[in-house]
Amino acid sequence: MGSTWGNALKLSIFGESHGAGIGVVMDGLPAGQPIDLEDLQLFMDRRAPGRTPWSTSRREGDQPRILSGLYNGKTTGTPLAMVIENTDTRSKDYSELTIKPRPGHGDLTGIMRYDGANDPRGGGHFSGRLTACLVAAGGVARQILARRRVQLAGRIFGIGCVYDRQVSWVNPDPDILKNLANKAFPVIDDDLGLQMADVVAAARQNGDSVGGTVEVIAWGFPPGIGDPIFDGLEPRLGSLFFAIPAVKAVEFGDGVAVANRFGSENNDAPSFVSVNGETKLRMLTNHGGGSDGGISNGMPIVARLSIKPTPSIGKVQPTVNLTTMQNDELQIKGRHDPCIVPRAVPVAEAALAIGLLDQWLGINGRRF
Amino acid sequence: MGSTWGNALKLSIFGESHGAGIGVVMDGLPAGQPIDLEDLQLFMDRRAPGRTPWSTSRREGDQPRILSGLYNGKTTGTPLAMVIENTDTRSKDYSELTIKPRPGHGDLTGIMRYDGANDPRGGGHFSGRLTACLVAAGGVARQILARRRVQLAGRIFGIGCVYDRQVSWVNPDPDILKNLANKAFPVIDDDLGLQMADVVAAARQNGDSVGGTVEVIAWGFPPGIGDPIFDGLEPRLGSLFFAIPAVKAVEFGDGVAVANRFGSENNDAPSFVSVNGETKLRMLTNHGGGSDGGISNGMPIVARLSIKPTPSIGKVQPTVNLTTMQNDELQIKGRHDPCIVPRAVPVAEAALAIGLLDQWLGINGRRF
Amino acid sequence: MGSTWGNALKLSIFGESHGAGIGVVMDGLPAGQPIDLEDLQLFMDRRAPGRTPWSTSRREGDQPRILSGLYNGKTTGTPLAMVIENTDTRSKDYSELTIKPRPGHGDLTGIMRYDGANDPRGGGHFSGRLTACLVAAGGVARQILARRRVQLAGRIFGIGCVYDRQVSWVNPDPDILKNLANKAFPVIDDDLGLQMADVVAAARQNGDSVGGTVEVIAWGFPPGIGDPIFDGLEPRLGSLFFAIPAVKAVEFGDGVAVANRFGSENNDAPSFVSVNGETKLRMLTNHGGGSDGGISNGMPIVARLSIKPTPSIGKVQPTVNLTTMQNDELQIKGRHDPCIVPRAVPVAEAALAIGLLDQWLGINGRRF
Amino acid sequence: MGSTWGNALKLSIFGESHGAGIGVVMDGLPAGQPIDLEDLQLFMDRRAPGRTPWSTSRREGDQPRILSGLYNGKTTGTPLAMVIENTDTRSKDYSELTIKPRPGHGDLTGIMRYDGANDPRGGGHFSGRLTACLVAAGGVARQILARRRVQLAGRIFGIGCVYDRQVSWVNPDPDILKNLANKAFPVIDDDLGLQMADVVAAARQNGDSVGGTVEVIAWGFPPGIGDPIFDGLEPRLGSLFFAIPAVKAVEFGDGVAVANRFGSENNDAPSFVSVNGETKLRMLTNHGGGSDGGISNGMPIVARLSIKPTPSIGKVQPTVNLTTMQNDELQIKGRHDPCIVPRAVPVAEAALAIGLLDQWLGINGRRF
Repeated sequence: MGSTWGNALKLSIFGESHGAGIGVVMDGLPAGQPIDLEDLQLFMDRRAPGRTPWSTSRREGDQPRILSGLYNGKTTGTPLAMVIENTDTRSKDYSELTIKPRPGHGDLTGIMRYDGANDPRGGGHFSGRLTACLVAAGGVARQILARRRVQLAGRIFGIGCVYDRQVSWVNPDPDILKNLANKAFPVIDDDLGLQMADVVAAARQNGDSVGGTVEVIAWGFPPGIGDPIFDGLEPRLGSLFFAIPAVKAVEFGDGVAVANRFGSENNDAPSFVSVNGETKLRMLTNHGGGSDGGISNGMPIVARLSIKPTPSIGKVQPTVNLTTMQNDELQIKGRHDPCIVPRAVPVAEAALAIGLLDQWLGINGRRF
Repeated sequence: MGSTWGNALKLSIFGESHGAGIGVVMDGLPAGQPIDLEDLQLFMDRRAPGRTPWSTSRREGDQPRILSGLYNGKTTGTPLAMVIENTDTRSKDYSELTIKPRPGHGDLTGIMRYDGANDPRGGGHFSGRLTACLVAAGGVARQILARRRVQLAGRIFGIGCVYDRQVSWVNPDPDILKNLANKAFPVIDDDLGLQMADVVAAARQNGDSVGGTVEVIAWGFPPGIGDPIFDGLEPRLGSLFFAIPAVKAVEFGDGVAVANRFGSENNDAPSFVSVNGETKLRMLTNHGGGSDGGISNGMPIVARLSIKPTPSIGKVQPTVNLTTMQNDELQIKGRHDPCIVPRAVPVAEAALAIGLLDQWLGINGRRF
Repeated sequence: MGSTWGNALKLSIFGESHGAGIGVVMDGLPAGQPIDLEDLQLFMDRRAPGRTPWSTSRREGDQPRILSGLYNGKTTGTPLAMVIENTDTRSKDYSELTIKPRPGHGDLTGIMRYDGANDPRGGGHFSGRLTACLVAAGGVARQILARRRVQLAGRIFGIGCVYDRQVSWVNPDPDILKNLANKAFPVIDDDLGLQMADVVAAARQNGDSVGGTVEVIAWGFPPGIGDPIFDGLEPRLGSLFFAIPAVKAVEFGDGVAVANRFGSENNDAPSFVSVNGETKLRMLTNHGGGSDGGISNGMPIVARLSIKPTPSIGKVQPTVNLTTMQNDELQIKGRHDPCIVPRAVPVAEAALAIGLLDQWLGINGRRF
Repeated sequence: MGSTWGNALKLSIFGESHGAGIGVVMDGLPAGQPIDLEDLQLFMDRRAPGRTPWSTSRREGDQPRILSGLYNGKTTGTPLAMVIENTDTRSKDYSELTIKPRPGHGDLTGIMRYDGANDPRGGGHFSGRLTACLVAAGGVARQILARRRVQLAGRIFGIGCVYDRQVSWVNPDPDILKNLANKAFPVIDDDLGLQMADVVAAARQNGDSVGGTVEVIAWGFPPGIGDPIFDGLEPRLGSLFFAIPAVKAVEFGDGVAVANRFGSENNDAPSFVSVNGETKLRMLTNHGGGSDGGISNGMPIVARLSIKPTPSIGKVQPTVNLTTMQNDELQIKGRHDPCIVPRAVPVAEAALAIGLLDQWLGINGRRF
């Protein structure tokens, strides 16, 4: 197993970085949902490599070809399959890596797990390229959610030691959030974004890479969605976020900061508030990121993902040589992102969309 | 769904805090594994309430009664079911809470999710009491792992703003780790532990509660265990850790700190090292917490859980009144932990044991 | 794994025939559904042993104790757990069977599967007694279906070579079907039922057992429920029916007879028909048992289960001796049904109810 | 859901008959297994249409293109994805069928299930064409099983009222069984096969179709594989067999015939027998089809599938008109098999291979 996920909405992801193609099957979608392929492609493009100075120069169209599940522009209700061909692969770049595994990568553990039979080219099935499948699936899921007034956005929360402005997600401004998708470097405070870009540029110049944090927000998600214990919002979304390569921490709401708090500071108290003349039930604060007991409370759902610096760096690194069985050194060549955080933003949004739609369908059914 | 988890080892948890009983069914255990019931009870006792000044004064035996799956002291291979009777329930304490839901608790979202049909007494199925089921299952799992030389330990990493000593988990000292289980307040530096206890005592005196962090470590876990993408160690363990009530962040290895790093600082490089005269393949550092690409690399597996302050506090709090449909105030009476972090340590260890055994069985099969 | 089933509604069954108790956890039930415990017990009683001359003289109350999931007489929406204590166990009857496994039983394969660690007493987890758990779960499921006008019934279709009247299930008579539940020997033609009883009596007198067929029918199930390929009505219900011990064939609609037909004979053609003045869409025939392409078509859902003669017979039989490792003979003592077919009727109804409710919840959601 | 199956080995099938392509993802295969693509194609060819006078004249190459999971001729251990392009589609043939649904087909229930959004062309996702995906997956599974000395074969057991010779599957002759795969009309007694062919030819001439029975056998499968209750061999294999369109009954071992038997006739008694000088534990008979209590007993695993006559016939049939909302008539044009039984043989073998490999991997793990 490994690459299959879901309760009401099942995903099956396949492919290797330098194989014939990668793809995803979505099983359990509601029928009759219009899917705007142009919107899907725009969402895919946000993850695609080769578009900013910060990303690898590998260029892939990353155009998902829909093999099934869409008829006359609408979902059929039966499995929706998307395939992305691998076109620009330079496998020779990777020949050295089965002998000298890259530190911090899955090269060595992949060999251990599969007794050396796995496809090592470009990281194989463990490549960040596989996140294109997640984005394709998420691009479908978010369109279905959007028609139910659930909106999603994501931003770079920090790179290295530079952070974007903190926002208390009680009443998010939809205009600011929606505009993030149009930015090549999606932050709220563009000045801080420029500082982050400098950190990336410096890492790049040093043949190094740098980590960062992504924040994603969903608003308009109705209260009362989620299940107890293992299928609460946090465990389900958490399992998706941690499926994104390089994610080493996942936070909901105030995340690690809750550990320093008193209950009187941290509790989100419900309150009847007047919104445009109507009385609504809201929380006065949103430390919990929209979830109590694993169930949505109607507030924005907020998560942050800590992303490690990409392990592929140009600097000389110690490693082992599996042919000589001696310690050795490695200098990685080829095209690599000095910072994958900007490209991880739509990936995290996609995971959020998939997780929320799965929960929704499980509780409300697949007849819309 | 909600309370069922697992691939090769399936768990089904049931029960409500003030109902007849709670329990867990474990399906998929290997047959013929001796289970030491005394050891299981000692592990349960580490979570049980009413044993320290920091925990609620509710007293439950918390003795799991094994209904099936154990024969002549060994697992049968067919489902192992454990039931814990609820004996000391004072439901009158909770009568007010369906009208005035507790801030930060699942009271209100439970009503939204189940249209008010859920059992509200003591939090019902959302009660922290249900973690006794996780501990019972984990207590079985860790004995099976221990016989394969996989050891687990956990500690309070911090309470409020006081933290225990940081440890780089490259060569953990088994004696220090094993001794943690014997401490009422499991920290490595007992002086820091006393400071944490002061924080708890202060919160208690103020009718408040305080959050904290738990760290868990597994060592001796073989390399090459884990699956790609959705079933990597992080997503699988993450889904279990987030199933523990009050957990708002999960970190693996250096966790949120990786976001601030350069790749050259963060990569764990493999190396042939001499251990007691034998050449072994190890990582020089362990920033990744024992996992690369979701697969174990032979280093200690390390995770940290950020636990929010328990929402049940004695202070007056704003809330809504669902009878009058007006804003109102609430002062919670009854027995509540000012800090659940110490009791969460064995819960996190249990989740770790369950997750690792599930992965192991899925790859190596259930014939030992 | 093994004893866990379900998509939208998950079942986890545990227990061994002569252990402390058996039980079932149902996860995913809709909340707020009233459960009539008296009706549940009446349904359980139809399976309970010791009530007719044809069944084993072992007497168990078979009263499920509900540990969770029911509050104020209604489902909470969180897991419903039921436990049945084992009270009348005479384990000494079975001591010989680990040495000389009973032909046709799971004794030998159980030893092979679990390396001898499984509980052999009374068949352990493989005992027909475990079907009480299925009946308990099915008893809950059918009440929820009944409130949505889905009715279920079952009958003995045949024992040995004597068969009840064939019925073309196009317009079933609800009165005849509902009355079946009141009969100790549920057949449509009671004269044929008496002939069947004679077959059972003869088998009993010979120290032998006899097989038979059970037919179950659900009517009022709405059209359009079911999923393609693996989750069609037939594969899902089939997996449940084959989970009943001793079932060696499952047929839907005309079953094995379809193999002998021409398409022009077998096709169920849709037609607008007038029912009480209203125009309804119906099938003119029901050879398919209410399912086309795995999806319900609004006609009665019909299945038949072929049940082998219970392997525990009084006659001397050849077997192996696992101590001497020689061929040997066995004469089974103890209390055994000469024919389990009558008791299998509510078990098959229960499986049908569980399967249909799971499909319904998966498509329509769990908010009623 | 619907098109996803499996515990240790997960399958995800996608595609519509006249869409861009169909395919299957296999997740959970052991790594390093050589796959002979020529052998796979030969197996695919046994199902492919257009090769005998009995089958539809539609011609598809049915060549699975492997997108991932195979590297240097061996499985990588990560998902193996296969796509079959749809090349010869004549969608105009089907335009009438959304208005006048074909009796006995999923046309009408598909519309009910998906509110008319499903792809109706050629049956869409419900088309028999999707079984090519099952055959592709089964073709991989059987090669892996074969390397562990598990062999599979299948035959036409009957068409209309003509049946092939009954065989008691105690000591199957491998030569006879292996030769079945080479026959265009795979029966044991070729004279009876000619009679069956006459039945098909007559049905064809009448613009009609005819049903039949397929029998599949696996030998060399080790004893002790299978799980209790829901994951026994019968429920797991049964769920796969019933996923094949047109299957209305599934029998294991003697199947429906066990209902007429006495226990003394039906029990399979174990015995130590001498095989080539070695003492082996065998059953004296094989009425149970190789399974006791859902667990393999070392005897050949035998199942029979009753296949209804294909509903697409040339004769005029009653149906409804969903435009006029009146009763109407339909005469189906286009290319259709008068008898799909011969082509169903490799499909049933494929299902058997998938089911047995899934059970094997779940118990023995995926490290070979």
